[in-house]
Formats: sequence, structure tokens, C-alpha cells
Amino acid sequence: MLTLVASGQMSPAEAAAQIDAPDFADLGFARVDMRRQLRTGVTEVVYGEGKTAAQIASICEALREGGQGRVLVTRISREKAQDVLGTGLFPEACYWEPSRLLLTAPLPQPDGKGTVAVVCAGTSDLPVAEEAAVTAEALGNKVERVYDAGVAGIHRLFASADVLATARVVIAVAGMEGALPSVVAGMVPSPVLAVPTSVGYGASLGGLAALLAMLNSCASGISVVNIDNGFGAAFQASLINHL
Amino acid sequence: MLTLVASGQMSPAEAAAQIDAPDFADLGFARVDMRRQLRTGVTEVVYGEGKTAAQIASICEALREGGQGRVLVTRISREKAQDVLGTGLFPEACYWEPSRLLLTAPLPQPDGKGTVAVVCAGTSDLPVAEEAAVTAEALGNKVERVYDAGVAGIHRLFASADVLATARVVIAVAGMEGALPSVVAGMVPSPVLAVPTSVGYGASLGGLAALLAMLNSCASGISVVNIDNGFGAAFQASLINHL
Amino acid sequence: MLTLVASGQMSPAEAAAQIDAPDFADLGFARVDMRRQLRTGVTEVVYGEGKTAAQIASICEALREGGQGRVLVTRISREKAQDVLGTGLFPEACYWEPSRLLLTAPLPQPDGKGTVAVVCAGTSDLPVAEEAAVTAEALGNKVERVYDAGVAGIHRLFASADVLATARVVIAVAGMEGALPSVVAGMVPSPVLAVPTSVGYGASLGGLAALLAMLNSCASGISVVNIDNGFGAAFQASLINHL
Amino acid sequence: MLTLVASGQMSPAEAAAQIDAPDFADLGFARVDMRRQLRTGVTEVVYGEGKTAAQIASICEALREGGQGRVLVTRISREKAQDVLGTGLFPEACYWEPSRLLLTAPLPQPDGKGTVAVVCAGTSDLPVAEEAAVTAEALGNKVERVYDAGVAGIHRLFASADVLATARVVIAVAGMEGALPSVVAGMVPSPVLAVPTSVGYGASLGGLAALLAMLNSCASGISVVNIDNGFGAAFQASLINHL
Amino acid sequence: MLTLVASGQMSPAEAAAQIDAPDFADLGFARVDMRRQLRTGVTEVVYGEGKTAAQIASICEALREGGQGRVLVTRISREKAQDVLGTGLFPEACYWEPSRLLLTAPLPQPDGKGTVAVVCAGTSDLPVAEEAAVTAEALGNKVERVYDAGVAGIHRLFASADVLATARVVIAVAGMEGALPSVVAGMVPSPVLAVPTSVGYGASLGGLAALLAMLNSCASGISVVNIDNGFGAAFQASLINHL
Amino acid sequence: MLTLVASGQMSPAEAAAQIDAPDFADLGFARVDMRRQLRTGVTEVVYGEGKTAAQIASICEALREGGQGRVLVTRISREKAQDVLGTGLFPEACYWEPSRLLLTAPLPQPDGKGTVAVVCAGTSDLPVAEEAAVTAEALGNKVERVYDAGVAGIHRLFASADVLATARVVIAVAGMEGALPSVVAGMVPSPVLAVPTSVGYGASLGGLAALLAMLNSCASGISVVNIDNGFGAAFQASLINHL
Amino acid sequence: MLTLVASGQMSPAEAAAQIDAPDFADLGFARVDMRRQLRTGVTEVVYGEGKTAAQIASICEALREGGQGRVLVTRISREKAQDVLGTGLFPEACYWEPSRLLLTAPLPQPDGKGTVAVVCAGTSDLPVAEEAAVTAEALGNKVERVYDAGVAGIHRLFASADVLATARVVIAVAGMEGALPSVVAGMVPSPVLAVPTSVGYGASLGGLAALLAMLNSCASGISVVNIDNGFGAAFQASLINHL
Amino acid sequence: MLTLVASGQMSPAEAAAQIDAPDFADLGFARVDMRRQLRTGVTEVVYGEGKTAAQIASICEALREGGQGRVLVTRISREKAQDVLGTGLFPEACYWEPSRLLLTAPLPQPDGKGTVAVVCAGTSDLPVAEEAAVTAEALGNKVERVYDAGVAGIHRLFASADVLATARVVIAVAGMEGALPSVVAGMVPSPVLAVPTSVGYGASLGGLAALLAMLNSCASGISVVNIDNGFGAAFQASLINHL
Repeated sequence: MLTLVASGQMSPAEAAAQIDAPDFADLGFARVDMRRQLRTGVTEVVYGEGKTAAQIASICEALREGGQGRVLVTRISREKAQDVLGTGLFPEACYWEPSRLLLTAPLPQPDGKGTVAVVCAGTSDLPVAEEAAVTAEALGNKVERVYDAGVAGIHRLFASADVLATARVVIAVAGMEGALPSVVAGMVPSPVLAVPTSVGYGASLGGLAALLAMLNSCASGISVVNIDNGFGAAFQASLINHL
Repeated sequence: MLTLVASGQMSPAEAAAQIDAPDFADLGFARVDMRRQLRTGVTEVVYGEGKTAAQIASICEALREGGQGRVLVTRISREKAQDVLGTGLFPEACYWEPSRLLLTAPLPQPDGKGTVAVVCAGTSDLPVAEEAAVTAEALGNKVERVYDAGVAGIHRLFASADVLATARVVIAVAGMEGALPSVVAGMVPSPVLAVPTSVGYGASLGGLAALLAMLNSCASGISVVNIDNGFGAAFQASLINHL
Repeated sequence: MLTLVASGQMSPAEAAAQIDAPDFADLGFARVDMRRQLRTGVTEVVYGEGKTAAQIASICEALREGGQGRVLVTRISREKAQDVLGTGLFPEACYWEPSRLLLTAPLPQPDGKGTVAVVCAGTSDLPVAEEAAVTAEALGNKVERVYDAGVAGIHRLFASADVLATARVVIAVAGMEGALPSVVAGMVPSPVLAVPTSVGYGASLGGLAALLAMLNSCASGISVVNIDNGFGAAFQASLINHL
Repeated sequence: MLTLVASGQMSPAEAAAQIDAPDFADLGFARVDMRRQLRTGVTEVVYGEGKTAAQIASICEALREGGQGRVLVTRISREKAQDVLGTGLFPEACYWEPSRLLLTAPLPQPDGKGTVAVVCAGTSDLPVAEEAAVTAEALGNKVERVYDAGVAGIHRLFASADVLATARVVIAVAGMEGALPSVVAGMVPSPVLAVPTSVGYGASLGGLAALLAMLNSCASGISVVNIDNGFGAAFQASLINHL
Repeated sequence: MLTLVASGQMSPAEAAAQIDAPDFADLGFARVDMRRQLRTGVTEVVYGEGKTAAQIASICEALREGGQGRVLVTRISREKAQDVLGTGLFPEACYWEPSRLLLTAPLPQPDGKGTVAVVCAGTSDLPVAEEAAVTAEALGNKVERVYDAGVAGIHRLFASADVLATARVVIAVAGMEGALPSVVAGMVPSPVLAVPTSVGYGASLGGLAALLAMLNSCASGISVVNIDNGFGAAFQASLINHL
Repeated sequence: MLTLVASGQMSPAEAAAQIDAPDFADLGFARVDMRRQLRTGVTEVVYGEGKTAAQIASICEALREGGQGRVLVTRISREKAQDVLGTGLFPEACYWEPSRLLLTAPLPQPDGKGTVAVVCAGTSDLPVAEEAAVTAEALGNKVERVYDAGVAGIHRLFASADVLATARVVIAVAGMEGALPSVVAGMVPSPVLAVPTSVGYGASLGGLAALLAMLNSCASGISVVNIDNGFGAAFQASLINHL
Repeated sequence: MLTLVASGQMSPAEAAAQIDAPDFADLGFARVDMRRQLRTGVTEVVYGEGKTAAQIASICEALREGGQGRVLVTRISREKAQDVLGTGLFPEACYWEPSRLLLTAPLPQPDGKGTVAVVCAGTSDLPVAEEAAVTAEALGNKVERVYDAGVAGIHRLFASADVLATARVVIAVAGMEGALPSVVAGMVPSPVLAVPTSVGYGASLGGLAALLAMLNSCASGISVVNIDNGFGAAFQASLINHL
Repeated sequence: MLTLVASGQMSPAEAAAQIDAPDFADLGFARVDMRRQLRTGVTEVVYGEGKTAAQIASICEALREGGQGRVLVTRISREKAQDVLGTGLFPEACYWEPSRLLLTAPLPQPDGKGTVAVVCAGTSDLPVAEEAAVTAEALGNKVERVYDAGVAGIHRLFASADVLATARVVIAVAGMEGALPSVVAGMVPSPVLAVPTSVGYGASLGGLAALLAMLNSCASGISVVNIDNGFGAAFQASLINHL
């Protein structure tokens, strides 16, 4: 945290607020973790699904009072986001529709050590890829996007080989047969985080086919997150990029 | 059949035997289909698993009496094969151990129109790939083998691009994530028959992961057979190569 | 391609456009493969699901500029299709509602070597059967349809035995228990491409029961595509029929 | 029961023993149901798996004391059967190895109203088919066997159409894709009991593929029992045949 | 059929129509089986799901022309049924809403040999139980209903023991844990047809839990049909009751 | 029951009504169990899903006539609840929307021996946690709620260690990875009833992931109920708390 | 613990040793929890599977040094148990073969408040039932056994209705369709802990069918443990019986 | 590579050999990737399962000739390892039995930037944890082991909080309910790689329960590898630790 203060990423007041904060704020319906940044170095993120707009706003306020001014909310629908924005509590907040992300403050300057490349297999995988890309940006990373580069026309992937090879982490997003991460991992020296998507039908089983494929990759250097979990991959990519 | 006789593939006596044959020979434990060649143009094949050596020998004899001298037996263990060979009934028979195939007569001269390429992802997929390759040869096809060319080191696959591109049919064999057929289908103008294998562990679920991946391929021109069913792919490849 | 030009299937201008085309056109949201026809002999097909009408129209335009005037779009809803047609960009385009297919130019003259037979088990399987039939026609094949010929009244199937026996490829479409391809493959000398459908309820598990049955067929000469993937079967059938 | 006595199937002493029997005999490890025949009209059957030879012998003795002299034991291995026979307690008992059945008295004279036809798809399905056939005989039915009549060579099935059409009940046994019952049910006016078997590999999933297929049959008049449960089908067939 | 004529169930004209009928009537979208009654003794039934009202009406008309005046249509929604009734083609038709059944003529007089008992576990299972009961009535059976008699209050089941014990066939309908058929089969001397329903949530997996339980019943004399398939159980029950 | 009367929980009239009640009241669509309280000590509960408001009201009336004035109805939607309340038959009834519970009389005074703690992992699990909490209260238990105390910020759980340690039973509710019960069971000396919820997406498989995790807990003292079955856990917790 | 000392269950020396014990003893391969008894009131249990006899002996010794003289080891094979007994370290230890349990000291005097009834469905379920029964005894409970009382002959269960109704907790063990707990829970006023077993074949899926059935029980008052986990049910039963 | 040479990790000769190496060495049964180190910075690893000892030795030799003297072989049984060691080709090779790893040269000096912590839940998870730990060491990382620290006695985990918090990457290994990674990820600021193991029985489904739990973790910063894939986690951990 002291590093963040020194670098201007966090104001001394925010830091003081965090140190003085209680362990958690009990809102009745939620126990907001006020010390996650102190403990794990990363700010708390709010999972928007299954929470009302009012609950989301309250949690973000509690966090701001605890010293965390920039809160990322995931899987929040357009309607709920408009309600949160409409409260006027977060005048600088912005919302990304395809990726269903809301950030209560503007995107920060990147402070990660390298770039995070986000590569996806098809146009239909875009929402998940964007969830990964915007999350990574919200957590302070420079992001390179390589979209619609599936293995059925593999020259489209090779055309971006340089971008991939120079990234510090690669997030590979694919539905259907989920083959993309295996090919990418054979091309780059960096860790590859694989994100299966629910794109497909029939025997894709809602993304299970892609998930299983990625878990069974013959290439080394791959790990996998839940189906459609672009956020999860970006969060871990950010941890790695800030090491 | 007349074509086969004209080309010397089948003797007039064999042809006559087949035409005179009853619909099937009832051996009690089996009803041997004596007219498959007349009906579908391809000889009867014997599935060895779950049959005794004596049953297998009887069926092959019945088929020979019906005019089919060259019988392919699949999934027959070394022990059973030795028992069948030991009867002395099929002096020209030979057995391939890795692929567990037995043929009651020597391999025929290829009479297919082009080559059948068999490409596999890893060394562990070899038994299934060989089942495909030897079956294709037993059914009269010229076969090109491209082995251990998985997508994690994709230059190994590209090194054989010519062999693949000039084949009339490609059989792509892979376990684990089963990504090989998708990449191959994007490289060649011919139909690709995908064979998932049970190679892998954990979430490979005995080959289901590879099977699902292949069924969900984003590449066009692929169809799939059962896990480890090298025979099935080769049988259809042979039908296509003889069109 | 030269053959296509010689036969009048493709104009010299289209051919020149394709040869001069870049590897792919990067539309931001999509990397349109401009050389698939050169590489695999078949034109690029657009998967409509998960793409907006505007995205689909852009991709079709890019392909036309690259020399491919006839583009097939699959799984495109009536609404999106009307939007694409409403742009006026593709005055000759037509749309098939049950099969959700759109073609940006009229159906071509068949140039395949034989006929593709499409046989389905029940009336409820019609949309998938039609996806297969129209796709095959769009790719230049003569198609014979044999509908509602399930195995529970097997004389209905035998009544069309001649149509099936003389086809160069047979596409067999069935839901529920998926038994049709096994019976058909025992009747014909040609390759059988099996398409499971999601018709059924309860233990049909959205078509998985039919899919598993087809993968386990006791008949030789069958390969299988994804559930409801009439397009995929027709694409491979067309490859085979043009060999 | 009085009918059985009148017809000489059961001696007056046996009948008296049953009427006087307690509800069950408590052997500690087992509570032997002594009144099943009174209650349901059919004698008690012993499931041999997971019981020792000594336990099986004790249960059969207890049943004999309760008036049931002919006891069927299912799924009993050759070793255990020899131990039971070796006790000398059941001098007339006999054992069928493929079907793993033991009967403590000779097969009875058939007293069912018609015949039970047992039809199976392949030679590998024989053990299950025999479990059905011998069970039906042990329960007093005349049995007709039609073996190796799978749908891939459907003329072999049609050759036995008369046997099937005149049976009072048909038991159809099949592994792999499990298509046989659907075809049979379209040919006969009697109820069809379908028995899936674990014959197959890969995507047969130990018989689940055949089970699912049979449950989803498009033909009417079919019901299904557990995988490899030839006994269960025969038991119900016997109930029907004795109505 | 002659029996039907003799008993007045079928008019001589209907019988003549059936004998003269072609094997099937090809309506383009459907091949209506015109000889099922001759072949299997039971009239053709129309599966309503996935067919339009117009298609259903056409098929019923074709069957009537072929001599079958009473046609049962299953799984037909209220809307479609009203459209079929609205055509005026079948003035005597009636529709049962909970069971989604339509019959083009009034219910026939029962001609089965005994009664068919339909027992269900809970009030939520009623629609499936009614599908079974009305189908059985439509096929000429006397039906006894025992509803809401689940095993958690087993005295409610025992209160109807007589009805169950005297039925010629019992249809046992249950969702959730599907235990009812096991208990019933231990109480009655007749065959029990088990129908799992999709009633439940969570780990009931849409009825799979009940289906698996019924397939694994420790009681003898049970066979099983697909989830929610009240029709299928009643059809087979009718076959048995007419033996 | 006498205890209930002595303690004023049940009036002598109610007790007399129960003793005089028939075994069950047959409403046609339902057989209402009138003696459950006598037999098992707990009043009958009505499962609201799949029943109409009229059916629910009738059952509650029948139970009241049988002496059970306080009836709990589970899984009843807001609309149906309003219809039941609108009948005016149960003027003291109240409805809890998040937990979809209706009680035909006010909450009783707690008579359980200790407290039932309900702990849940996240805010999205609240509806299921509330179903458990309100059910426990309706059955006469004092309830302590500890909400949003998931294992990712485990200090939030430890902050309530005392509440958990002094409860007589703990109900632990969690979706996603379902880890909460394992951690809780290592902290407390009382039995832990685990409730998986359907909160999550992708590989959570509708709550199956949490269910499997809980069944495989490495901690002793845990048992599990169906997904989202807060009622079931509370019912058993109440039995334990009243021992 | 003081209660245990006061009642003579634990010597003052043992109690002192436990209070002085470190949090855990680190044996390198294991961190033995030395304060579980202090924390949860129950002694530590050792899971024998996947541990060597030497590891098991070391852990038991470490626990004895920490004041816990009676250690229960579960799922320990006959061979390993003999090795542990052969060390001579635990002269009073005894081993139960069917249930694979080892106890390093004699069974204690029961100190639970009531009896624990263990009821199982069939003879094949005995090993799991015995694991439950002996575990309960080892934890200080009086146990009543009711074996082979499955629902197919339900009078065998009713014959023991008194034993079940007077137990403080009932453990119901069943494989195959797992119906027993539902029937039992409708008969008794106490909590029912359901244990599915892997007894069965085919669609029993290694016990999953029974597990799913129990989770979906229509009876209230049931919770469920893992397949074959007799220990887990007994552990929780003991917690309840000692409340 | 130049860095490796500069630091003495690789000799100039080895580097030169690698640069001069062909793309791959074709051994017939294998195409050994000779440039992986150049391309991805990490040496090639050999998957031992499904390969003979002779094949393994040949591949290691080919790699050594290509400049890679230290080759890691995974999943190699004791017997095969002894055969490889017995060839005398790799005099410095050593073998780790629990983790089934073979290294053809001694362990290298650590050159990673921080430590890799390997934490496992139970003693039975040790083989997988050791596969991770030894692999990480073989790839040049300093490793800290924290074993038997499952969540059921969570103080054992907290006792090692410092080791975990200061690691650069944490590998968390757990079977059964797989809860460990969720708790760990809430305690540390570094990325957590989760490894599910096949430890467990019944509903653990061979490790699927743990795998699903980890994929659904409510904690951020976790990614997952295949069941029992300690190697895969260590490989990616090493990539991260060398960034």
C-alpha cells in the first residue's frame, strides 16, 4: 500500500482510511470485506448477479468509506447499472454493456509490468473477451486485443504472433471445441490463462466441452477458469502482471 | 462385384459362391451375413470382442464358404489371435498386435482412388492410429502415416502439410483435448474423419473430452466416430476413397 | 479454382480477386478468412448465431470484395435475416425459414458428381433435415429428400431403398433413439453421415441419447456430427460428392 | 396357490407349509420373505451378488422349509455355485454358467399361456439374453430364442418375423446403439420388454447409450429394464405370460 | 381385425378400407403408416409436439380415409387442439387439457380383459398420471385411479391395496425419488409399469433421479418408460390387458 | 401431543380433533395425511409447487378441520399466495416473499431446546437461507442468522464463531464451490446441515458442484440436503432441536 | 471435557495432556489435530485410505501422547490393520473386517442419551451398515440393528416399527433405488440420516442412483451423506445422540 | 537462451546445438520438438504414460543431441524408470517414486525470482503435491511445502500463513470437496494454482467434485488444472516465478 501511496496511485487519506477500517462492514445482507487490499494487495470486487441495485450501491459506498474509491462490479445488467448510476453517488462511474462491467471511477493508469494479451476464437466470444480485457484495464494493466483468431483459419492467429509472444500473460478465450489455448501455449513463453465460453450448441453442453478440452490440453503452461469467467482470468493475469 | 472380378480382385468362383449364398448362415450363436458384399459392396467384418476364438474361426470359415476369403477381425487379443492362427485354417492370416487386427489373407493391392492420410496427435495415440491405418490397407487403400503431430508444437504438423493436402480423405486421431481435427480441417480440401482416443486422465473422462471437442469443432468438413474407433473411421474413409 | 473458372462456376474476375486478396480482412470484431476457397476449395460460411445483422452484412461484403459472391449464413433468425435483406446490399439473397439459412446469391447449378440423399426419421426432424438439404444445394449438390421414414414403421424406409442405394452420400437425420443411421448403413454401399436432433423429451437429454446411439452404431460406414448440425453433415457430404 | 396345487405344480404339503409360514424368517443377515408367493403369486428369487455361498444356501433352505422348493439364484459366480452345489443340500440343483443362474430344482414344465421370444442383437449379448431365457424357463414359460439379429443386417431379423409375431411377449436384448427394440416393436402386436446391455466401448458408457436409446424409442409398446438385467425382463414377461 | 369387426368395435367398411389401404400415405412432410393396425393390432397414434395443427389434421384425415376413425393425438397444446377442433373435420373429437390429449372420436367401450390401475405419488404428478389414464381409456381399458399415495405416508397407499391387487396391470407414476413402484411391486401379483416424472428440483435433474431409481428397483416385476411418458406406459398396459 | 397440550402449544380441542381424525382426507386430487402429527410429532407441510391456489387452500382447510391450525406452505409464488390470502379463510396467515413461504397462522413461540444458527456464504444465497430460517421459526425454534460469511474472507466467519459454537444445530448454506460447511464443521461441536444452492454459473451446473463438494466434505459431522432445499434442512434441524 | 472427566470417561491425566497439547503435531506427512476434542467435543478420527500402516500408527501414537487414547481408524484394509496391530503399540486394539474399522482401545460404555437405530435394505448393504453401527458404538452409543428390511417386502420393515420409532436417531442404509429412507421417515418422529450404498449395477452408476433418490425424498426429516459413508452418518448421529 | 548461457545454466555448446537443431527429430513413433526452448523458453518435457521405456530413452537421447541435457519425464512407473536408468545412458538421472518423475540430470540450482509454495489438504494428496513440488524444483524453483493443512482444522493452515503470504506463487492441492484453494486465495496476494486430486470415493467421482468446486471458487485469483495434474500447475508456476 505504501508503494501505491508513493506512486500516487492511492492518496494518503485513502491509505489511512483503509488502515483504520474495521475488518468488515456488516450491512445486514452483506459483510463487506474492508481489508482485502491490505491483506491481498487487490481491491474488493462486487459480484453483481443476485444483488439489487440498492445493495450494490450500498456496498460500493461502504468500500469508499473504507478507503477504496474505485470499485469494480461484475455481471451487472444494463438496468441495474443505470439504477446505480442514477443515484448520483458515483459521478465518475462508467458502464460497459457487452461485458456487463461497472467501475465507480475512471480507468486507472496502467501500472502492471507488461501487457496482457486477450485473444479470442470467434466473434461470438467477444462479450467474454471484453469482460477479461476491461477487467484487466480496471486493475491497472495495458491490454492488447486479438479477436476472431480461431484455429480453423490458423494464419489469422499467426498474424498476431508477435503481440502474443511479447505479452507477459496471455488470456485465451474460446467456446465450441476450445482448442485455441493449446495452440497459443505452444507459441509463447508466458503463462496462458484459458477461458472456456458457453458459445456453441448441442454437445457443447453450455461450455462444458470447451472447459474439458482446456483442462486436458496437451500443451504445458495452461490453467483454466470457469465457463464465461473472463473476470477471473483477468484478475489472475493482473496478479501475475504486477508481480 | 463384377468390377471386382474384372479387375482380378475376386475370382469368378468367389463371385459365384456369393451369388449362390443364402442370406445368412445360422451358426446358432451367430447369423453370419452372407450377402453384405452384394448389398453394400464391402465385405463383412468380425468384431472380435466378446467372442471366443472358436466362434471367430467358425464365422470366418462360414464367410469363406460364402465366397469371402479375406476377413478382417477387429479388437482381437493376442491370445485369441494365436488360437485362431493355431487352428491352421487360415495359413495366410496375419495379426497386428498394437492395433489388435487379424486378417485371414494377405493385405490386398490398393484399389482406392487416392491416398488415405492418418495423422495422430501423440505417441500414445498410436494403437488407435494403427487400427485405422491397417484397416484402411486391408480394405484396399494406400495409406500415408503422419504421427506425433499434435497442436502444441504445430510446426510438426505443418511439416506434413503436403501429405495432408493431397490425400483424398484424412483421418485425424487425438486424445486429451482433441484439437487436431479442427486445425487439420482448416488446412485441407478433403473430408476429415475425427477419431477421439481414450488417452488422457482425470477430466478426459475416458476420451469423452476429446469426443465432445471434435463434435463441436469450429471447422467445417469434420465428422466423428466413437472413442478409439480407428476401424470405423477407416471403413468410412475406404468407402469415400472408392467412390 | 481454375477448374471452377473453366467450368463457368466462377468468373475470372472473382478468381483474380481471390488470388489478390489479403490473407484475411480485419473488421475489428472479425478476421474474415479471404483465402479459404484457395486453401480448402470451399467458400467461407458465416455462423449467424451471436452476431448482429450489421456484423453479418459486413462480413458478407468483405467476402464479396475478396471475390466470394455467394455466401451462406447459418443459424440466422428471421428478424436478423430481414435486416440483412433490408440493407439492399444483396438483392439476390434468399432466406429459408425452417432451416434458418440465408444465401446472398441464388442457388447454384449442381456440380457434384452424384446425389446427396437426406433421410429423416420423423416430421419433427424436418428443420434439421432441411438445413442439411438446403446447405447441400447451396454448395452445388443435387439433393433427394426422404422424410418421415423412422424405424418404427420400417416399410416406409424400404419404400425408398432405391433412392438411398443410388445416392453418393446419405445424410440420416433422427432424434429420440437415433436408430435410423444404423438401419440405413446396412442397406447402402455409400458413406452415411448421421445427424442427431434434439427432438424428444426427458431422457433424450436434448439430443444426447440420439448422439450416443449413433456413435455406438453396430453398422459400419457411419460418422456423426453435432446435435442439430444439419449444416455440418451437408458440408462434408458436399466435399465427398465433389471428390 | 390352490390352482398350483390342483395342477400338480405344487404339492399339498408345500402349500400347507407356505400358509403356516411366518411372514419372514430372520436369519440375522437376512429377513427371508416367506409369503411372497401367497402375496404376489411368484416365488422369491435370491440376488446372489454380495452374498456368500453359505448365506445363499441358508436362504434357500429357509425358503424350502417355508414351502418353496424351487429357488432361483441370480448373478452367482461359478465358484459360489460350486460351493452351494457342494453342500449336497440341493441334489437336483443345476447351474448355467453364461447366465450365472442357479436353480435348486429342475426346470418346471411350462405353464405360461404362450411363448416368450428372446431376441438379441449380437453374439456378445448372449450372456444377458441367456439370463432372460433361462429365467423365463425357470418361471414356467416356453421360450423361443432368436440370436444375432441386429439391425445392421436387418434381413436376419425379418427371417424370424413369424416367431416374433406369434410370441405373447418379446424380450429384445441389445447393446451399443440399442436400436433393436424399436424395430421389433414396429413388427409385432405384443408388448416388447427392452434390455440394454453393457456391450460396447467408449461412448457406450457401460450400456447407458443403449439404455437411453430404448427409453426414447419412437415405437410404442416398449418398456425398459436396467442394463444387463435379463432377469428383470424375464420376470415381468412371465407375469404377463401367466395372466 | 376380424375379431374387432365381429365384436362391433370396427365396422366392416373400416376393415375393408384398412385392407385396401396402401402401406403408407405420403403427405410430403409425413409418411402415415396405414397398416399399423393390421400389423400390430393397435391403431396409429400421432405425436403432437413439433407438428403444426394443419399437419396434425391432415394426418388424422389420412388415417380416417385408411379406415382408422379414432385417432389419439398426444402432447398437443390447448392452442393447437382448438385449431384442430376448429376445422370442423372431427365433430366428435374431444380434448383433455391437463394431459394434453386429443381423441378424434368419443372414448370407446372398454374391451380389455381387466382393469388398469393408475397410481401416482403426489398431486404434482397428476398431469402425467392423467395422460396414462386417458390414453388407457382411449385404447379400450377400464381404469382405476389412485392419486396422491406417495411412500412418505404409506398408509394412504395401503388404503387402496385392493384396487391395486385386483388390477391386471398397474401403472405407477412418481417424481422426486421415484420410490412408489418398488413398494407397489411388492404388494401386487401383476406387472408394474413405472413412469418417472419431472416433478422435483435441484438434484432431481429433470426427472433423471426418479428414472434411475425405478430402473434400479429391488422389487421384481417392474419395467420403466421415459420421463413423463404416461402415454407409453398406458399403451403397453393396454397391450397386456388385451392379451 | 399431550406435552403440546400441557404446554399450551395446542388446545385440547385441536388434540381431540387430531385423535378423531381419519387416516387421511381424500380430496380427489390429494390424500391429506391427517395423522402425521400423531405419528411423527410434526405437523404436515404443503409443497406449493405444482398445486393451484385452490388446491392449496383446500388442503389447508382439511388439515385445520383435522386439528392442525398452523400449516406451512413452501415454494408458493407471490401470486398464488395472494390468491390464498384473498380467500379470507386464513385471516392470520402471513407470507415471506424472498423465501416463498406461507404460514396460515402467526409464528409460534419457540419451544426448541437451543438455537438454530443459519449461516450463509454470500448475499445471493439469502433466499435459501431465509427459507431455512423462517421454516425453523415456523416449527418453533429460535434462530440466529449469520449472513455473507463466505470462506474467501474467512475473518467474517470467525467474527461469528461464538454464535455458531453455542448453537444446538448449524445450517450452512452456500452455492458456488460449497466450501462453507467444511470450515464450519471444524469449528463447532454440533451437527451441521449443509444446503447447496444454485447460485453460480457455468461449471456450477445449477448447484451440483456445491452439492458434490458438501457430500465429499473432509470434515466430520455434516449431512446434506437437496439443492436450494432450505426447508428440508430446517425441518431436520427442528427435529434435532426438539429432541 | 470436564464432563467426561467427571463421568469417568476420561482420566484427569488425559484431560491435562489435551489442554497442554500443541495445536497440532507436525509429523511431516501429517499435521495431527491435537485439539479437536477441546474444540468440537469429539475425538479425532483417522481416514485410513491412502495412508501406510506406519503412517497410521504414528498418527495414533501422536494422538495418544496428546491425550486421546481411543482412536478410530476408518477404511483400513485387513493387511494394514494387521500391520498396525502387529506393532504391539496398541495391545487393546481391535479390528472389524466387514466394516474395515480399527479402534485402538476397547469399545466404550454407551453415554449417548438414546439409541441409534441402523436399518438397511438388503444383505449386500451389510458392510456399510456395519461401518455405521460400529462407528456409533465406538463413539459411545447404544445401537439397534434392523437388517434386510427393504421396501419390496415392506412387512419386514413394519415388523421393526417399534425399534425405529423409539430410536433417537435412525440411520437408513440402502443401495439400488434408495427408497428405504423415504418410507422410514414417514414412520418415525426422529431425524433420519440416509446412507446410499454402491450396491447395484448398470444404471445404479456406483450408487449415484440411490444418492439422488435420497436427496429428492418426498419425506421430510432426511439428510444424506456420501455413498458408502456409514462412518459419516454415524458420526453425526452420535453428535445428535449426545446433545 | 543467451541469459541461460551467461548465467552458466547452459553451456555454449548446448546453446549452439539448439540453434543448429532441426525443427523436430522424427523418430517414426515421435516427432521430438527440438526448438521448444528457443520458442517458449522452457525445455521439452516427456509424458511417460503410454510410451515404452525404449521410446522414452530414445526421445531423451534425441533431446540431448539437440542440446537439452536435462529432460523431465512425467508419469513414469517404477518399472519403466528402472529400465531407462538401466540403459546407462543417463548416469546422473534420478527417479522420485511417489511422484513418478524421472530427471535425466541432477536438480538445477533455483533461478526463479521467489518461492513456490505447495500446500496440500491431506496426507492422501501427497503424491500429487510431490509431483508439483519436484517438477517445480526440476524447472529451477525454490519450493516450500505445507502438507496436511485441510480446512477441517483450519488452524493448521493458518500456522503456515507466513510461508504462503511470502510465496510468489501458491499451488494448492486438494481432493474430496476441494475447498483449500478458496481459503488460501483469501489469505495471500499472489496467484493461486489449484490442483484437484482424485482422493475420495463415491460422489467424489474420481476428482470431478474437487475440480468443479475449484472452478466455482468464490475467491478471486484462482485458476485450475486437470485432476491430479501436479506437473501442469508446477510448470505454469515456474513460468510465473521466472517472469
